Amino acid sequence: MGLMSSQDYVNSLKDGREIYYRGTKVYDVTQHEVLRSAVNHASLIYKLQENEKTRDLFVYKDDNFGYSSKFYKIPRNGNDLMERFNLIYETSKMGRGSFDVIKGIGSDAIFALMIITKKIDSYLKTRYYENIMKFYEYVIKNDLGLAVAQTDVKGDRDLRPFEQEDKDLYLRIVDKNKDGIIVRGAKSHITQAPVANEIIVLPTRNMSEKDKDYAVSFSIPPNTKGLKMISKPLKAVETSLNDPWFVLGKENMETQSLIIFDDVFVPWERVFLAGEYQFAGPLAVMFPTFHRFTAISYRAVIGDLLIGLGKLLAELNGIDDKSHIRRDIVDMIKYKEILRESALAASLYAEIDEDTKIAVPNRVFTNIGKLISNETYLNVVKDLVEIAGGLADTLPSTQDFYNEEEARYLKKYLVGKKGTDPLTRSKILSLTRELLSSLGAFFTTIMIHAEGSIEASVIELYRSYNYDESKKLAYYASGISDEMP
Amino acid sequence: MGLMSSQDYVNSLKDGREIYYRGTKVYDVTQHEVLRSAVNHASLIYKLQENEKTRDLFVYKDDNFGYSSKFYKIPRNGNDLMERFNLIYETSKMGRGSFDVIKGIGSDAIFALMIITKKIDSYLKTRYYENIMKFYEYVIKNDLGLAVAQTDVKGDRDLRPFEQEDKDLYLRIVDKNKDGIIVRGAKSHITQAPVANEIIVLPTRNMSEKDKDYAVSFSIPPNTKGLKMISKPLKAVETSLNDPWFVLGKENMETQSLIIFDDVFVPWERVFLAGEYQFAGPLAVMFPTFHRFTAISYRAVIGDLLIGLGKLLAELNGIDDKSHIRRDIVDMIKYKEILRESALAASLYAEIDEDTKIAVPNRVFTNIGKLISNETYLNVVKDLVEIAGGLADTLPSTQDFYNEEEARYLKKYLVGKKGTDPLTRSKILSLTRELLSSLGAFFTTIMIHAEGSIEASVIELYRSYNYDESKKLAYYASGISDEMP
Amino acid sequence: MGLMSSQDYVNSLKDGREIYYRGTKVYDVTQHEVLRSAVNHASLIYKLQENEKTRDLFVYKDDNFGYSSKFYKIPRNGNDLMERFNLIYETSKMGRGSFDVIKGIGSDAIFALMIITKKIDSYLKTRYYENIMKFYEYVIKNDLGLAVAQTDVKGDRDLRPFEQEDKDLYLRIVDKNKDGIIVRGAKSHITQAPVANEIIVLPTRNMSEKDKDYAVSFSIPPNTKGLKMISKPLKAVETSLNDPWFVLGKENMETQSLIIFDDVFVPWERVFLAGEYQFAGPLAVMFPTFHRFTAISYRAVIGDLLIGLGKLLAELNGIDDKSHIRRDIVDMIKYKEILRESALAASLYAEIDEDTKIAVPNRVFTNIGKLISNETYLNVVKDLVEIAGGLADTLPSTQDFYNEEEARYLKKYLVGKKGTDPLTRSKILSLTRELLSSLGAFFTTIMIHAEGSIEASVIELYRSYNYDESKKLAYYASGISDEMP
Amino acid sequence: MGLMSSQDYVNSLKDGREIYYRGTKVYDVTQHEVLRSAVNHASLIYKLQENEKTRDLFVYKDDNFGYSSKFYKIPRNGNDLMERFNLIYETSKMGRGSFDVIKGIGSDAIFALMIITKKIDSYLKTRYYENIMKFYEYVIKNDLGLAVAQTDVKGDRDLRPFEQEDKDLYLRIVDKNKDGIIVRGAKSHITQAPVANEIIVLPTRNMSEKDKDYAVSFSIPPNTKGLKMISKPLKAVETSLNDPWFVLGKENMETQSLIIFDDVFVPWERVFLAGEYQFAGPLAVMFPTFHRFTAISYRAVIGDLLIGLGKLLAELNGIDDKSHIRRDIVDMIKYKEILRESALAASLYAEIDEDTKIAVPNRVFTNIGKLISNETYLNVVKDLVEIAGGLADTLPSTQDFYNEEEARYLKKYLVGKKGTDPLTRSKILSLTRELLSSLGAFFTTIMIHAEGSIEASVIELYRSYNYDESKKLAYYASGISDEMP
Repeated sequence: MGLMSSQDYVNSLKDGREIYYRGTKVYDVTQHEVLRSAVNHASLIYKLQENEKTRDLFVYKDDNFGYSSKFYKIPRNGNDLMERFNLIYETSKMGRGSFDVIKGIGSDAIFALMIITKKIDSYLKTRYYENIMKFYEYVIKNDLGLAVAQTDVKGDRDLRPFEQEDKDLYLRIVDKNKDGIIVRGAKSHITQAPVANEIIVLPTRNMSEKDKDYAVSFSIPPNTKGLKMISKPLKAVETSLNDPWFVLGKENMETQSLIIFDDVFVPWERVFLAGEYQFAGPLAVMFPTFHRFTAISYRAVIGDLLIGLGKLLAELNGIDDKSHIRRDIVDMIKYKEILRESALAASLYAEIDEDTKIAVPNRVFTNIGKLISNETYLNVVKDLVEIAGGLADTLPSTQDFYNEEEARYLKKYLVGKKGTDPLTRSKILSLTRELLSSLGAFFTTIMIHAEGSIEASVIELYRSYNYDESKKLAYYASGISDEMP
Repeated sequence: MGLMSSQDYVNSLKDGREIYYRGTKVYDVTQHEVLRSAVNHASLIYKLQENEKTRDLFVYKDDNFGYSSKFYKIPRNGNDLMERFNLIYETSKMGRGSFDVIKGIGSDAIFALMIITKKIDSYLKTRYYENIMKFYEYVIKNDLGLAVAQTDVKGDRDLRPFEQEDKDLYLRIVDKNKDGIIVRGAKSHITQAPVANEIIVLPTRNMSEKDKDYAVSFSIPPNTKGLKMISKPLKAVETSLNDPWFVLGKENMETQSLIIFDDVFVPWERVFLAGEYQFAGPLAVMFPTFHRFTAISYRAVIGDLLIGLGKLLAELNGIDDKSHIRRDIVDMIKYKEILRESALAASLYAEIDEDTKIAVPNRVFTNIGKLISNETYLNVVKDLVEIAGGLADTLPSTQDFYNEEEARYLKKYLVGKKGTDPLTRSKILSLTRELLSSLGAFFTTIMIHAEGSIEASVIELYRSYNYDESKKLAYYASGISDEMP
Repeated sequence: MGLMSSQDYVNSLKDGREIYYRGTKVYDVTQHEVLRSAVNHASLIYKLQENEKTRDLFVYKDDNFGYSSKFYKIPRNGNDLMERFNLIYETSKMGRGSFDVIKGIGSDAIFALMIITKKIDSYLKTRYYENIMKFYEYVIKNDLGLAVAQTDVKGDRDLRPFEQEDKDLYLRIVDKNKDGIIVRGAKSHITQAPVANEIIVLPTRNMSEKDKDYAVSFSIPPNTKGLKMISKPLKAVETSLNDPWFVLGKENMETQSLIIFDDVFVPWERVFLAGEYQFAGPLAVMFPTFHRFTAISYRAVIGDLLIGLGKLLAELNGIDDKSHIRRDIVDMIKYKEILRESALAASLYAEIDEDTKIAVPNRVFTNIGKLISNETYLNVVKDLVEIAGGLADTLPSTQDFYNEEEARYLKKYLVGKKGTDPLTRSKILSLTRELLSSLGAFFTTIMIHAEGSIEASVIELYRSYNYDESKKLAYYASGISDEMP
Repeated sequence: MGLMSSQDYVNSLKDGREIYYRGTKVYDVTQHEVLRSAVNHASLIYKLQENEKTRDLFVYKDDNFGYSSKFYKIPRNGNDLMERFNLIYETSKMGRGSFDVIKGIGSDAIFALMIITKKIDSYLKTRYYENIMKFYEYVIKNDLGLAVAQTDVKGDRDLRPFEQEDKDLYLRIVDKNKDGIIVRGAKSHITQAPVANEIIVLPTRNMSEKDKDYAVSFSIPPNTKGLKMISKPLKAVETSLNDPWFVLGKENMETQSLIIFDDVFVPWERVFLAGEYQFAGPLAVMFPTFHRFTAISYRAVIGDLLIGLGKLLAELNGIDDKSHIRRDIVDMIKYKEILRESALAASLYAEIDEDTKIAVPNRVFTNIGKLISNETYLNVVKDLVEIAGGLADTLPSTQDFYNEEEARYLKKYLVGKKGTDPLTRSKILSLTRELLSSLGAFFTTIMIHAEGSIEASVIELYRSYNYDESKKLAYYASGISDEMP
């Protein structure tokens, strides 16, 4: 017990879990040519815990559990949240711009479950809080890696869960007995499930009484019988197999899966919600609040990567002093720093949950950061492409640089600003191309949809904003009221 | 000495200062039908100091000077800056969305002068720091109101000061003697000079050696011989004279003036720069850093006012549940809260000047907030107009509501959402119309140009950003470097 | 009969019509200090008909009616629509950027009524088409000026007409007899009604059977008993009274009114719809199709004015060669020329109504132009303000330029680019300021709401677009279908 | 002679041309696993000429040359340009959204060369016009496929060609003799050169006298000695090899190459410019004018594809009635139809070259369309991704659908709106993913950079716009001038 070694973590994944990749069953995820990039990326956090230089950033001594991962430290105030921002931010830099989600997402879910189960128990005399606290203890003591499965496949978006023709289009309880529950359905877009030690399941939306079989939350190991994971194709990893320059693809990719629950059994002690439909909504909102805070923290690093590529390309291309290029780069700076600002404000204006004393990131600032990162990501990509020029697509392949005869020409003709190195320029351009191609669908979709759609954040912001102060000012300014705001 | 009463402040303005308004000389600014709105607005801070309920927000006990205005408290750390944000923010709310600049801008200039004169003295063995410190003591002890004159009229924008055909297009020293200097020129867009006790003059740009007569900074009272102030027409105040509903126009307008310096004498003890051209640039940049922080603080309140008007109109019009209206209001929320976030981040990441121990707002975050407020203000206005509908222009006049025969129809036909009051709706619409008309040129130009143009912030951000971290990440992610960032 | 002289037109307005301005009854609109600007502006078209140089643009010889206004020429094909675009475009330039709507809007309504009444008669055996054709003959023969009243005051936007608490919140038929109908209600934002010879009334939306009393269309003269017009305050005209520089305000302003129908009688021969609720929707959509074509035609000229002001200010300020200023002006060019393009495409892809052989502007292109003009107008204003600089607000008043002592300073200090005239610069800046202030609410609201809101155009575009071709391509490209599109 | 058959076209490519792909020499481009998609795509035009149903669209009978490709028909007026728009538009639809450039780009270059060489000959008594006319005859008679090489590799962007350290960074004449010229250098981003019959070379920018060796234009066959083509990696084709659903990748990809000119000989009769530096600029601008017209024509079809995908996904996902989705799709409609409008206006306002009577697309409208397509493409992609949802990235691979066990789950769980087919939805999502990934760098870079950068169009628009009319209006409106515009 205590911190898990990176080797133990990798070994822990060889447990018979049922994974499919491009139509083929994967027998050992750690040995799979493609998926092992996801294993490697997830193991980064464990390696950083082992590394003397980085250990202090990742490990703290918990009063109850001894040396533990900082990801599992319960935030009690604004400073804890700022520290959590920093943890996620630094991890993402060390992951070459790719966040290692294996502990972040699970802890987001656990904190949300702590808060909501406490309320359920208090209102309905259930005993879920005990379950989540024991589960938390199990996770922190064993330093486990976690996935979180929230989004259902949803079928017809106009119908509620119980109204769907096929009743399984939202995950549901099909049976209960004294030992546990049996669930059926599927969860979409689930990150890193094939390389997790546990999968935490959450409801995806609010539920009415008729939907009560769909109000379900629990945790199970990925090798549970009946659970099947179909990974999306990982183009970035596949591309990297033949491209010695593309280390990010080889080392730091995560995988998203469709998870099938084909009548899966969950023991009662791992159940956190089972029918209490009134709390599906609150839980479905509380998790994203934590997780969107995580999102703006790691997205700031994607902003960093874009700034780095953009500024280097501007310098290497020798257009660093052009007014329109300056504007592009300032756009990138805004993109990144608004995320940092939002995280800061979300921390400082955190709300402390009364029952559990957990610090919840401020909803308004969290969603502002998240919304802006959704809406403007592709605009920043446009900036990058504007700076990069046509070679962002037409750069010859890495293999051409390894063919001596061609390489002679490439080094001669792909020079940029006097004194700069054509190979450096080509490598920066090559990564830029991967961002737009093998990483394109992933980054674009993540930045627009992950942790909730644009519309979801708009609605959340609209609802959660307190208009009182603004209205008071409007009444005063318009002469309707004499009361100074 | 000590805090000035609001009555004393008003009386202090009757000192023979030379002001013009719409082609006519103004003999007593405090009695002038229009300009007295500017007097009234400026006096707000003094009234709030007198008011028991608000005194604590505005007054602190200084170790050296006793009870003093908080605007003159030198910021020493991030918390002081956050307190200053709050001071400006609350003042602006109490001013119906209009900031009372009479102490804010002057203190911004004084802090900048403290930092820069210290450096000049240290490099060039001058004695300006002593002058600014004595001036500061004079200001804080007498609780004075201040204006700051920075922007020159500039003539041909392609030419440096010394290259202009007319040498007076930037303010310059035309003579020096043992008692002081004689200056000639004009400063543009100067806020609240006719109602200030002192006018602090700063250089508008960096200067070369040939420009050294233009490198000049000092402070003088507005009634100094040769100083003439031509106020812009104040449409909002003029409008309010016949409009009982428009209190903001009547009570809370500031005035901008063109100030002519027709061979004005300044005694040496009030001179802070006189020829040390190398420091004109640093001073021209340091003041806006403080002042842009002030800007994002007061602009957050303009955001508040827009949110208040927008949300009320959405409710009164009965379109509060429309998706596109929700989007408009969320835009407004983003506008305002990014300003608050930026101020917060600028405070927490403040840089402490080594020599003077003054906390300077972080340049990156300050300029991000400022830039966004410039670029997106009219987009938020578009949102407001979209919500308000055509009545934002076509609402009958206030006088129509006072004509009984018409009023009968207006009350019948200008109802909105069931149960809401047509007069409330009309008053909110009326203020909305003023924002677009009598306040339109003022608000639009302020939000786009005040405290520096869009391009000025773009250049400042581009220059002051530290790209090292981002580049390191790009090198690591692209496989050029193995060093983890 | 035949073309009306401008003098006869002015005299025709002295007919006892009931108008209110700022709470006071207006006894003769042609003599009213403010409203006479609207009279003057409307009379422009009549003057241009009299003017030898411009007559050919405005007058054609109709086969049935002899020399007639081209505004009343029924469009039969794309070329006719392009000629109509040109007519509106040139009229607006001659109106200093302000369209003279007095014949354009009425003809838009008449064409729509011809098409729809034909259909009503054909379906329901009514005889409205004859009424509109006779009315058309009356209008063209007497060369009348027209207003169109469509927008109801609407009350609670969530309720249909018949559901409103006060039944009069949409204009409705309160009685019918053998001579005609009696109507009650109010219409909002009606342009130039106080200076029209007839007011054409149209329904504002689709109607259900229960709303059938609200399905009403007719025309009446403005001096009809029970009809009262409350003009909005015309700030631009009021401002111009004391400002010799501001000719646009003095000469070319239109007025918008709230029109009260206090049990107004309409004879049957002037009724075009009275209860046929099924056709309220089609009529409510057909008129805007014509009128939005008119809108994009005149808005192109507002674009022209912005380009002219922007380019001149860039040159006068001496910043014509700056990259960000270039960008601003290119934005303006795009704004204007997309409107011209849209009008062109809407003409060339016109739909010819089968029954009446009237050419209807293409709905997609018309709405695209209209939508873009709504959404981006304030962005172009931002460009203009960025170019103009702070003087767009802080320029001294015209009166200051007439005070000799001040004028001496102003001419010295308000110079721009070497060799340019400070008075020219000041006048261009002065007009820019009026656009942002006395004209601000008018222009902003017009450009965002006139001829339908942004959302209205979005919905119209979404509905009227033919997706077949695009879907076929998507099926082919995705391999679902082998049929080449 | 006359029209070439598609089979002859394919055979014509087996001529020993020197091509590299991923570091390996390609011996027969028509047999190469990847590049044959480019061959196939280029041959589409020849197949359509052979196809009875489509022949009339592609073939016309030329007075001099008999049955010829319509791409080679010289445009003489607006209608010819509109026909050319239609030709390109329809070709692109038949190419699954991908334009078959093999005749379009070459004819754009030939038309530009005709106009400019005529002027050179007239000014400098050269004989280039004869050369281009003979070349044109050769091309049209043999129905050849063409590539155009304009963009040099450029080295340091701050230096002119002759100032570069390595003199070869712009293509230059290194020797001349009685038979012809020898050229050295490299051209970047050249489309379809490996599958062309001739490569036309144009200068990339204006030149000074010192750059005169760089002022060079000519045409040569791709198998000319010393000419080497390095193709970019074609990810879309590679992806399609294992993906039976991805027909667009398999059938319709073009290739971009870096072309090396290693001391290549060009006979005089194929030289169109050789040292007349004054005409490098005009030629460098005239070609893009034609080619940007081509660009807005084919880009309209990419708009079509996006609309088709977006609308289908909205329907299949069951979110077709959501306000924010409607907005996304209307954005797409605007994107596409502005391109069509611009092409229309550019045709109708064409300028006829006086000397050659060739119709040149209007520069303002062409560049407006082009600029908007550059600036807003990624915004439309954002719309598409917003509609598509997370499956745009996380959809399982095609192979998963072919594994029966998985397919059972996929068909059950990937259903959308009631009654729609999960496989149809998956295929549309699959193509969407390819647009964002294997096609991502290509489409994004093309849409932002092809046919000139954003900044190039901004500068071109700024320069070519005629401001006279706008200024006249501004002078009139501001009261400076009394002359009616």
